[in-house]
Amino acid sequence: MADIWFNEHHVTGSVKLGLNIQEILHIEKTPFQELQIYRNETFGVFMTLDGFLQVTEKDEFVYHDMISHPALAVNPTIKNVLIIGGGDGGSAREIARYNHIEKIDMVEIDGAVVEACKKYLPSTASVYTTEPRLNLIIGDGVQFVAEAADCTYDLILVDSTDPAGPGEGLFTIAFYENCYRILKEDGILINQHECAFHDLDAIQMQKAHSKIKKVFPIARVYGFNIPTYSTGYWYFGFASKKYDPIKDLKTEQWENLGLKTKYYNTDIHIGAFALPTYVKEILSKA
Amino acid sequence: MADIWFNEHHVTGSVKLGLNIQEILHIEKTPFQELQIYRNETFGVFMTLDGFLQVTEKDEFVYHDMISHPALAVNPTIKNVLIIGGGDGGSAREIARYNHIEKIDMVEIDGAVVEACKKYLPSTASVYTTEPRLNLIIGDGVQFVAEAADCTYDLILVDSTDPAGPGEGLFTIAFYENCYRILKEDGILINQHECAFHDLDAIQMQKAHSKIKKVFPIARVYGFNIPTYSTGYWYFGFASKKYDPIKDLKTEQWENLGLKTKYYNTDIHIGAFALPTYVKEILSKA
Repeated sequence: MADIWFNEHHVTGSVKLGLNIQEILHIEKTPFQELQIYRNETFGVFMTLDGFLQVTEKDEFVYHDMISHPALAVNPTIKNVLIIGGGDGGSAREIARYNHIEKIDMVEIDGAVVEACKKYLPSTASVYTTEPRLNLIIGDGVQFVAEAADCTYDLILVDSTDPAGPGEGLFTIAFYENCYRILKEDGILINQHECAFHDLDAIQMQKAHSKIKKVFPIARVYGFNIPTYSTGYWYFGFASKKYDPIKDLKTEQWENLGLKTKYYNTDIHIGAFALPTYVKEILSKA
Repeated sequence: MADIWFNEHHVTGSVKLGLNIQEILHIEKTPFQELQIYRNETFGVFMTLDGFLQVTEKDEFVYHDMISHPALAVNPTIKNVLIIGGGDGGSAREIARYNHIEKIDMVEIDGAVVEACKKYLPSTASVYTTEPRLNLIIGDGVQFVAEAADCTYDLILVDSTDPAGPGEGLFTIAFYENCYRILKEDGILINQHECAFHDLDAIQMQKAHSKIKKVFPIARVYGFNIPTYSTGYWYFGFASKKYDPIKDLKTEQWENLGLKTKYYNTDIHIGAFALPTYVKEILSKA
């Protein structure tokens, strides 16, 4: 086969991560975005949206471990979960591993992402066929949280693209306010918090943090090492009405569940909230 | 200028990090390796050895913070330091920030690296002209530790290339045994511990850990997010005769020094030793 590379340009365009393409599996222009699925020798099958890498078979475990388990180790009585985005199914897959979860509403704007992942990424998307507690809604997450009833969810995961394109409305204060409203009195919001190294990324992180901390009394940020994302280190926000992510961590209770995870553990739960000094400074100025 | 890219291929050759070259500053074939210095818009001036990226102006602070400060926050009475490698000067620069340090012996095999960094990377290499406690020896680190007297150093930093090429002898059990011998009774060894994500990297990490823990009673591994290294996350080993890197951390004492650091702080000191489950497994099998 020809020597073909997928290149993701970071920040200014002077840095890129390249993945050699072994096989082109799927190319589609959906009503929302350009969807492409390829195979790379090292990272396996990977999906890109509008030219940005979203998920690879080999390192998705990091992202999905870290978006799901921290909240469930802090509040082990979570029953009702809302996932915004997350079309590949990986976040729902991890949430569904907890037997005490009663319902997972998932609102993905682009049905084509779900269908393509079912076909090419069964390691994340098989949850769609195996999980009866999962209620998939193809629709707009911004509208969904605006219309949902007060005090409905214990946990909301915002598993979105970056704040450009379809993901834009998921980084607004109105969206965070609706999340607050539809969360129960001890609810937790986990959201995409971008990366921090380059100046332009830092501005996005600062903006998101500035909005969230206006809405939630507890707003923290934690990081994880995902090789295929820009700079290799990405962040989620942990916003909450009641629980502190460290003080309220139920180490023993979580470990007693006996869940096997490849990235997450209760040590790294604490470690992930320890931030480099330059990241602390970005957040303190938010 | 022409559209030129420096590409570093990771592991199998199917993944690469590309840095656009704004300017070619220096190309040299030294007696030990191929040395190149370029300028990139995002990461500034960067040096490569045998085609592998070693140091960039923009993210060197991460590496040099993390190789230096953890040991000094654990033992604040360190006086005599040995640096093996570290030709760019960044590790010596950080160590020299502590007034209580009396002497820094630095053994760099390739004098051409020192000269090129003096010219093109003054932000790391200015230490050579400003620091009277720094004793630069151009020579072989393996031979140096074999010939040095017993119980000479409080701290050894192995700031080397990967275990291929000139750095190879710095990953052997004989080398670690000599480090043990020339360290004082409460000595600490910090060494390059590679990365962990890809199978081939994991094997290197396992090999190094397996050797070090045979020699030192305390052998731990800690990580840090450096964007221009493969997978964005790299590890150092903390090996010691007496001190535990967490239990013996002197948080207050270190903070009272008032050192400004851009990456290191005593929270991330603890966080860096919290390892993902797959890394714990690699090390437990060593």
